[in-house]
Amino acid sequence: MLTYKAPVADIKFLVEDVFDYYGHYKKHPEFEEATPDLVDAIFQECAKFCENELLPLYQSGDKEGCQFDNGKVTTPKGFKEAYQQYIEGGWPSLSHPEEYGGQGLPPSLGMVQSEMTGTANWSWAMYPGLSHGAMNTLQSHGSAAQKELYLTQLTAGTWTGTMCLTEPQCGTDLGQVKTKAEPNDDGTYNISGTKIFISAGEHDLTENIVHIVLARLPNAPAGTRGISLFIVPKIKSDEHGTLGEANNVTCGSIEEKMGIKASSTAVLNFDNAVGELIGPENKGLECMFTFMNTARVGTALQGVCSAELAFQNSLAYAKERLSMRSLTGKKYPDQVADPIIVHPDVRKMLMTQKAISEGGRAMIYYTAKIVDDIEMAKTEAEKKVADERLGFITPILKAFLTELGLESANHGLQIFGGHGYIKEWGMEQIVRDARISTLYEGTTGIQALDLLGRKILLTRGKALNNFSKEILTFCKDKSMLSSSPHKRQMNKFIWPLSKAVANWQQYSLRLAMKAKSNRDMVGSASVDYLMFSGYVTMAYFWAQMAQSAYEKLATDVENRDFYRAKIKTAEFYFERMLPRTKSLAKTMLADPKTLMQLDQELLSFS
Amino acid sequence: MLTYKAPVADIKFLVEDVFDYYGHYKKHPEFEEATPDLVDAIFQECAKFCENELLPLYQSGDKEGCQFDNGKVTTPKGFKEAYQQYIEGGWPSLSHPEEYGGQGLPPSLGMVQSEMTGTANWSWAMYPGLSHGAMNTLQSHGSAAQKELYLTQLTAGTWTGTMCLTEPQCGTDLGQVKTKAEPNDDGTYNISGTKIFISAGEHDLTENIVHIVLARLPNAPAGTRGISLFIVPKIKSDEHGTLGEANNVTCGSIEEKMGIKASSTAVLNFDNAVGELIGPENKGLECMFTFMNTARVGTALQGVCSAELAFQNSLAYAKERLSMRSLTGKKYPDQVADPIIVHPDVRKMLMTQKAISEGGRAMIYYTAKIVDDIEMAKTEAEKKVADERLGFITPILKAFLTELGLESANHGLQIFGGHGYIKEWGMEQIVRDARISTLYEGTTGIQALDLLGRKILLTRGKALNNFSKEILTFCKDKSMLSSSPHKRQMNKFIWPLSKAVANWQQYSLRLAMKAKSNRDMVGSASVDYLMFSGYVTMAYFWAQMAQSAYEKLATDVENRDFYRAKIKTAEFYFERMLPRTKSLAKTMLADPKTLMQLDQELLSFS
Repeated sequence: MLTYKAPVADIKFLVEDVFDYYGHYKKHPEFEEATPDLVDAIFQECAKFCENELLPLYQSGDKEGCQFDNGKVTTPKGFKEAYQQYIEGGWPSLSHPEEYGGQGLPPSLGMVQSEMTGTANWSWAMYPGLSHGAMNTLQSHGSAAQKELYLTQLTAGTWTGTMCLTEPQCGTDLGQVKTKAEPNDDGTYNISGTKIFISAGEHDLTENIVHIVLARLPNAPAGTRGISLFIVPKIKSDEHGTLGEANNVTCGSIEEKMGIKASSTAVLNFDNAVGELIGPENKGLECMFTFMNTARVGTALQGVCSAELAFQNSLAYAKERLSMRSLTGKKYPDQVADPIIVHPDVRKMLMTQKAISEGGRAMIYYTAKIVDDIEMAKTEAEKKVADERLGFITPILKAFLTELGLESANHGLQIFGGHGYIKEWGMEQIVRDARISTLYEGTTGIQALDLLGRKILLTRGKALNNFSKEILTFCKDKSMLSSSPHKRQMNKFIWPLSKAVANWQQYSLRLAMKAKSNRDMVGSASVDYLMFSGYVTMAYFWAQMAQSAYEKLATDVENRDFYRAKIKTAEFYFERMLPRTKSLAKTMLADPKTLMQLDQELLSFS
Repeated sequence: MLTYKAPVADIKFLVEDVFDYYGHYKKHPEFEEATPDLVDAIFQECAKFCENELLPLYQSGDKEGCQFDNGKVTTPKGFKEAYQQYIEGGWPSLSHPEEYGGQGLPPSLGMVQSEMTGTANWSWAMYPGLSHGAMNTLQSHGSAAQKELYLTQLTAGTWTGTMCLTEPQCGTDLGQVKTKAEPNDDGTYNISGTKIFISAGEHDLTENIVHIVLARLPNAPAGTRGISLFIVPKIKSDEHGTLGEANNVTCGSIEEKMGIKASSTAVLNFDNAVGELIGPENKGLECMFTFMNTARVGTALQGVCSAELAFQNSLAYAKERLSMRSLTGKKYPDQVADPIIVHPDVRKMLMTQKAISEGGRAMIYYTAKIVDDIEMAKTEAEKKVADERLGFITPILKAFLTELGLESANHGLQIFGGHGYIKEWGMEQIVRDARISTLYEGTTGIQALDLLGRKILLTRGKALNNFSKEILTFCKDKSMLSSSPHKRQMNKFIWPLSKAVANWQQYSLRLAMKAKSNRDMVGSASVDYLMFSGYVTMAYFWAQMAQSAYEKLATDVENRDFYRAKIKTAEFYFERMLPRTKSLAKTMLADPKTLMQLDQELLSFS
């Protein structure tokens, strides 16, 4: 019963007007093929594929789930065919290097593509999504031979990839990894151990799967400094990819989960499976870090996808469902009741969803440009600058957008009333699917520690200062003191945004001071601090969108309604969502004592 | 994998120390049998039944669900046997009048019983729960003969009851009800129509089901003024309850839902089913209102049940799961890592759950005394006072506690990390089951309109003034200006509580003024206003619990740890949760314009 229409108007507004992707592409000669004509055609084709092929499998995929039988996993009906079409359309290769068969288009375009596939069917999109993770690792750390063999297959989509990190005893705390790698005489390794929660770890979409596995060499140092990275194919092959015998890696079972049921989550047993080392010995975690930020932005995207799908469907329902009358008088006197969209509280939920979806999209598309910059950096210095920018904004995006995506999904269910709780409408599935997003790729708590502990305190606020400077420059350029033609209309955004940024800096400093005398301050404040940071960051993007909308209003008469709606949504965000920072400011600065003073044995009494 | 231990220590603290149930029972001679010895024995027996019989069916019931086959519904394995034990234990009759076979104990004790059954297995508890709703309606509005027949069976538990309100086209907006009642010559009525979302509408626990049905008489006025209430048994019987032939009501299907899967949610087709009128013609909705408040408090209880079950299980996990080290230094150097309970953010989630569960329990137990008062009122004036008190606090309890119960369930899942998403742990089921609670018995939005529109604006703030007076009297009695022996320790609660109540009154007045010129202000502010009211109300109960704990600390040396924990949790609540009112105060007062100014056709563009 769910519908999805790719929000191409909004996507083009960001790509063209707000973030000037084409100006940005011109800076990188490698991206010269990414012309408006080509990009528009890609958007249209991708939208068609997602709306017509992927969305129809969203609810049926959940109902059917993945089937496990004797080590084999069967994906739901239609998944394999859709994947075949995806390969034939050349989609896996869109933003990967031409050297290994890719189309060499910018990663930022890949992000738009991922948004559409992910909104139409997140579970399905996880199969190619995990491949991107494996491809990025191989691209950065693989040898020439490894790239030649594995990247070629992954780029073509004929094989898919996985990331095998988690074990039963550890997820976040990878220092506890026990999987072993014993060297063989021929330079390969025998990998043994159990990995769990492996997304796309076993399936029937492709003949082969390339596992990227964290494991320990003999006599490796304890903890995170003794972990190395290995490539372990499900089926062995020669150097041209011609498949040979099966490797000793078997799928022991798949998990029964709350949601994303069409995505296979495998327990993988490695029993002297043959693998190759990738990257330097004992540097596995560092190698992982190089692409962890992009993987996390890819998960942040799930927040936008959940928000968008929930919004589109609850909006349609709110216009149709007739219940009660507007308190300001009948709006549709000829009908038995008014549609529920007339009720301010329903409006509030819809506007919240809209603000999350569009604001989140802006945050992602902005970040995608930074990913482009990293990939195209000409010098180490350029790369470092872009890396630091990405590293700062990534935990905000991952935690904040997934939390808000879940909120939006829940609003969607709520707008449907009791019907939202019934499976056939699909709204409860969006909530169940969204619920994983605050957990995997680092929970909200882990992102918050990364932000406050590593990105703020460890850099002594440098990354925040840089980002604040960017926001304050924007504020100055559009302020009442500037010569901006829209400075009067923009004042309602510029003033609270400047104030919010000033608070952000000031509270960060206060937290840093407090953390010096009590390290528990970091964990105590972190999640509230991250959410605070998220609301301020999103305010910056809503202000930018409002600015662009004011500019376009003057020139693009045909789409005035679009720009007006954008400005009104920005007003909603500033009046109704940004004030959430008020409570967060208070609680993040509270003494950790109220959390820690109670002895853990005294938390319950029977 | 889930465990549950009835929180008897906390229950007894509320019953004995905070709310002095025994002093309250003495005021009502009908309750003289409710002595501490009997009540303690009931708690122990009920706890045993819930822990040993109901909890083990919680996860299996979800997995199996209800089965529908050709009009018949089979409940999950073990449900019928547990229900049989429940009847044999005399539990259905606990707090119902002796006249029809009940034990005549106070409704407030029935609430404690409902909490335990509901925490151990909410889906199972819905079958007897719906019976209570039907019993209350019959008790208030049934004729002598109707009571004699139906109440006797329901009190014994040999039959169960339902409430048939919702139809496909309407849930909240009952004025749209279409089900018809045609009078027969013998004084009965032929009922025809379709009812949906009927909890316990069809099942195999008992031989008969008593449906209470909203329907329209011929020529009844349109809208809510033309609805009458009917009793429609599934199987007809003689006046002694000897079953005869089936009535013309059939179960067309049951819903596939997000959660509470072991609770059957039926589509019922009435096709000239024979029914009896209950209460006066066209006064069906008014009859419903008399017990709607207690039904809503019963649903508010689900918030506490979800919070408690999630808390108990995530607390146990947080003590066991080893991950990372405390930022203040290793706490368990001999283990591979520290248990996650050492991390402040995990603590924050646990303390939030604890504050919700215990604070919510206090709110419910306080309200249960009001329900006792209504039942035992000797005069109409007494009843009116108690009714008004109940009517004011009910929407706060229903919406606030179910929203917070869902929050707690989500924290529980989050504490388990990725494992929380896996079915076998049971944590995701608590979230799915809790998700219905903000929808049925009036959504959060409906409760919020009831509170702000009917209970505040329509009474010109009278109900709020009365409740505020009660809180401020408490504050005065325990303040620095009082002679209370604990006034110094209590100051940290009394001061912010007084301030919060003053704000509550002031904002209510401002909203009332604004609503005069713009009726959309009501819907625009209502949900934020309700949540604000909830946090202030819960603060009152946390302050009361702290006060009782300080008093007991001096006399009850054996349980000092319990009282200290209570005080520290109150401190947590005041520092970490009450400040959520800051943002709500800001957003509830915002102009409705930001919600309403965007034309509904301009909410999306493709």
